[in-house]
Amino acid sequence: MPKIHTPRPVARDNWRKEIHDIIFEADTPMGKAFDVILMWAILLSVIVVMLESVASYNEKYGHIFKVIEWVFTILFTIEFVARMVSVQKPMKYVFSFFGVVDIISILPSYLMLLMTVGSSFQIVRILRLLRVFRVLKLIGFIKEAVVLRNAIIASRQKLIIFMLAVVMLVIMLGTVMYIIEDQSSGFTSIPRSIYWAIVTLTTVGYGDIAPRTALGQSLASIIMILGYAIIAVPTGIVTSEALSKSDKPTAINTQRCEECGHRGHDDDAVFCKHCGYKL
Amino acid sequence: MPKIHTPRPVARDNWRKEIHDIIFEADTPMGKAFDVILMWAILLSVIVVMLESVASYNEKYGHIFKVIEWVFTILFTIEFVARMVSVQKPMKYVFSFFGVVDIISILPSYLMLLMTVGSSFQIVRILRLLRVFRVLKLIGFIKEAVVLRNAIIASRQKLIIFMLAVVMLVIMLGTVMYIIEDQSSGFTSIPRSIYWAIVTLTTVGYGDIAPRTALGQSLASIIMILGYAIIAVPTGIVTSEALSKSDKPTAINTQRCEECGHRGHDDDAVFCKHCGYKL
Amino acid sequence: MPKIHTPRPVARDNWRKEIHDIIFEADTPMGKAFDVILMWAILLSVIVVMLESVASYNEKYGHIFKVIEWVFTILFTIEFVARMVSVQKPMKYVFSFFGVVDIISILPSYLMLLMTVGSSFQIVRILRLLRVFRVLKLIGFIKEAVVLRNAIIASRQKLIIFMLAVVMLVIMLGTVMYIIEDQSSGFTSIPRSIYWAIVTLTTVGYGDIAPRTALGQSLASIIMILGYAIIAVPTGIVTSEALSKSDKPTAINTQRCEECGHRGHDDDAVFCKHCGYKL
Amino acid sequence: MPKIHTPRPVARDNWRKEIHDIIFEADTPMGKAFDVILMWAILLSVIVVMLESVASYNEKYGHIFKVIEWVFTILFTIEFVARMVSVQKPMKYVFSFFGVVDIISILPSYLMLLMTVGSSFQIVRILRLLRVFRVLKLIGFIKEAVVLRNAIIASRQKLIIFMLAVVMLVIMLGTVMYIIEDQSSGFTSIPRSIYWAIVTLTTVGYGDIAPRTALGQSLASIIMILGYAIIAVPTGIVTSEALSKSDKPTAINTQRCEECGHRGHDDDAVFCKHCGYKL
Repeated sequence: MPKIHTPRPVARDNWRKEIHDIIFEADTPMGKAFDVILMWAILLSVIVVMLESVASYNEKYGHIFKVIEWVFTILFTIEFVARMVSVQKPMKYVFSFFGVVDIISILPSYLMLLMTVGSSFQIVRILRLLRVFRVLKLIGFIKEAVVLRNAIIASRQKLIIFMLAVVMLVIMLGTVMYIIEDQSSGFTSIPRSIYWAIVTLTTVGYGDIAPRTALGQSLASIIMILGYAIIAVPTGIVTSEALSKSDKPTAINTQRCEECGHRGHDDDAVFCKHCGYKL
Repeated sequence: MPKIHTPRPVARDNWRKEIHDIIFEADTPMGKAFDVILMWAILLSVIVVMLESVASYNEKYGHIFKVIEWVFTILFTIEFVARMVSVQKPMKYVFSFFGVVDIISILPSYLMLLMTVGSSFQIVRILRLLRVFRVLKLIGFIKEAVVLRNAIIASRQKLIIFMLAVVMLVIMLGTVMYIIEDQSSGFTSIPRSIYWAIVTLTTVGYGDIAPRTALGQSLASIIMILGYAIIAVPTGIVTSEALSKSDKPTAINTQRCEECGHRGHDDDAVFCKHCGYKL
Repeated sequence: MPKIHTPRPVARDNWRKEIHDIIFEADTPMGKAFDVILMWAILLSVIVVMLESVASYNEKYGHIFKVIEWVFTILFTIEFVARMVSVQKPMKYVFSFFGVVDIISILPSYLMLLMTVGSSFQIVRILRLLRVFRVLKLIGFIKEAVVLRNAIIASRQKLIIFMLAVVMLVIMLGTVMYIIEDQSSGFTSIPRSIYWAIVTLTTVGYGDIAPRTALGQSLASIIMILGYAIIAVPTGIVTSEALSKSDKPTAINTQRCEECGHRGHDDDAVFCKHCGYKL
Repeated sequence: MPKIHTPRPVARDNWRKEIHDIIFEADTPMGKAFDVILMWAILLSVIVVMLESVASYNEKYGHIFKVIEWVFTILFTIEFVARMVSVQKPMKYVFSFFGVVDIISILPSYLMLLMTVGSSFQIVRILRLLRVFRVLKLIGFIKEAVVLRNAIIASRQKLIIFMLAVVMLVIMLGTVMYIIEDQSSGFTSIPRSIYWAIVTLTTVGYGDIAPRTALGQSLASIIMILGYAIIAVPTGIVTSEALSKSDKPTAINTQRCEECGHRGHDDDAVFCKHCGYKL
């Protein structure tokens, strides 16, 4: 007979469980507050890194930026330690995607402390800018990120083939263009001509390199109309994938009941629809 | 037995009902004429605001523009008052979308009267230009606007996720580009580099900022091909949404017969197809 | 009992029928040859008009171009007269789409004869260039043109709504950009700012006008990402239309049996599948 | 009773069969190693041709590039000879797509030996650059290339019609633009104006030619919004094609069991799932 399961007995790890609930769940008021604060902390700290790179702002507010930066670094460090102690296997977390992102968001600040006056200025600069990758922490807040990732993985092979075909095409078109066009138009080497072919085929069209001869402009015209038609291919792939996904939505939810192993639960299911075990 | 309903008895509010029919319905000759005049008034007044901003035209015809402008302002004021008195709850109309649009289209002209000689020139200028938002009044004429709005609302969440992913991507790509490229190429700060990344990923490609180093051009090439493939995602989302919509077309017309509660009427239905009551 | 119909008895209009078969049908060797010659004549005459506009070519080969031009004009005139005499109602043909195109392709050459030395040079130039519209004669050779036209007509209303929405959007965005940006960046009037907004939203991005202030570049970034997402809408509309079309392919072939009125014939059907009458 | 078939008896052509298995199959360790080496050889040799075109690299490492080039040429020659001797009909292979690609990838190097000092520098240069077409040899490694080719062939006719329509459109738009715009804006001839129309309609937008008059910018705006809507057409075509393909996935794998004639095998099937015969 299916019955409602009682929560598992909680041992002396009570405090650890509580921290886990606050950090990893958004059900409790504390958990929600933590999420909101963390999100703003990420956004603000990324904005500070961005503003720091603007020369005029850095001159005026450079010292304030440094203080704010350290406040966020300490905050993220506390968060990282709390996450580590609250999970069952800390080392597994550290080497997971989100663990690596957490480390990247605090490490640069500490490494900069180790830099002595004689250190390479270039390395310090890169370290400071790497902090912008904190923005990756936001992925954790997007519930649909998993669905998106699955969709991309599903159509990955086709998209890689498509990109490979594009790369082969631009290599050949770039070379032909290099033969046709004069060096004075900017087609000074094959790699540069390939760069131009990519800029044209993807319809970006900077205009820093542009054909000048009649033959070159004719070939460019063909490339453009080709690129215009080619863009339909990845769209067709993704749309067809998205549609086949929407026909069988159960394929997305991979949750499996721990009690009876039943699959195909809805996204908002709380209990197994087969045996009543809490999911 | 289904029977043709007689119109509801009209009380002393006869004139209000008549105004309502002229303004809100397009069934009667008067209502149609009102719609056509209003549409042209909107178009002409927007064109006048646009032409006023061209220095050479304003010099020559500035005084004519002012007269035309006041004619339209008075016309739109009369329309706004008429709409208010003809509806049951005037205040609810005022704070509705179309009420706010109506106010925006007449308020700037009146506010400019209050401006004395010493007023900030910048504010006067902004007020004058805000009148261009009158163009929003045209939405009322597009019957399909509701369908479009519903389609956007339906795929809203997915589109927001998509845009968020794009924002995260350009922040990281912009930062890396800022590290790679020289300041002389135009990558003078992270915000500017992010601006470049958006210009490139969306295939706009102004060319005011463009990479010059081999490494920068290589990364730019990857961004372009990426952007070429990424554009497929929103297309897939909207197409899949549009298709699932077109499978159940009855979902669009939400009209419900007041007499028998029957649903699923065609867009051009005048009488309930179930009981004959006028819809 | 279905039987193979004999061709209709041909009266004294034999020569007219023959001309009709040569010009309008591609079944006979003569008809095929006529089609091939006409197609090349159209292509060559358009190329001549194009080359004539290149100053260096016109200087050298101007007199040859004139001779070729008159050969084609006489050829197209003969074709036009032949088409007129071979159809039942010549005037109906003249005012049909292809009749007008035929006139446009020969009229400019004759009108130029009427021009005296004192005629406006500008009008002569426009007349000469109008001959390029001969390219429209090619539509007759594309069998699928009808299908394409039907598909566009089917999704016409939705596409117009979409374009109207885009126009409203660029008017408002252009005005806001005009308020934000300095005149020195190229945003000298609202029409010019709207032009910029269109160039940006459609991801063309010439770069002749580009925002320079931080606020302007931020708004531009939003417009670009918006434009990136908006492009999905017409694609969704057309794809959904194309799919619903491909589900019921019989809707495309509108051929109706003259004998029994049966419809739904395949594109390659020669006889009515219901009564055997030749289609 | 289904049984596992023994491999067919191998005659004295044993060595030829072995070479065939190594070159054309990737099942054996030798075959896999051959594939990996060949892939890297193709990539490296193409990169060398590309780097050779960069003036600064060629000056420094020109002699190394020449040595590497000859190593690869000999390698590809051996591969070509091995392929020829291992197939049943060598001449059929030589004139197949991959045979021609193989010849193109080795011929230029040998032809350059024939060039004497007095030979045209331009021809030598083109010969050297043609070696970049070796990249086409990579197609053999992409299993899905066949599927992609079939999809393109299936929607070929529609795409050609679409491109023809685009070409007709840009010829007319280019001519009108040539009439409207001044020569000083870059619209110096009809071919150049058509080039501009293509650059605009495909949303590439270099900015080397851009309209300056109000009328020209208005027409350009219409072209851009048109191009924005037109891009939906090929997407709709390909998506609709991709979807109709994905509905009947068995159509892709056309393998038929030689024993029982059973169809619908998976792509990675080694034995017939019906009778156990090795496929």
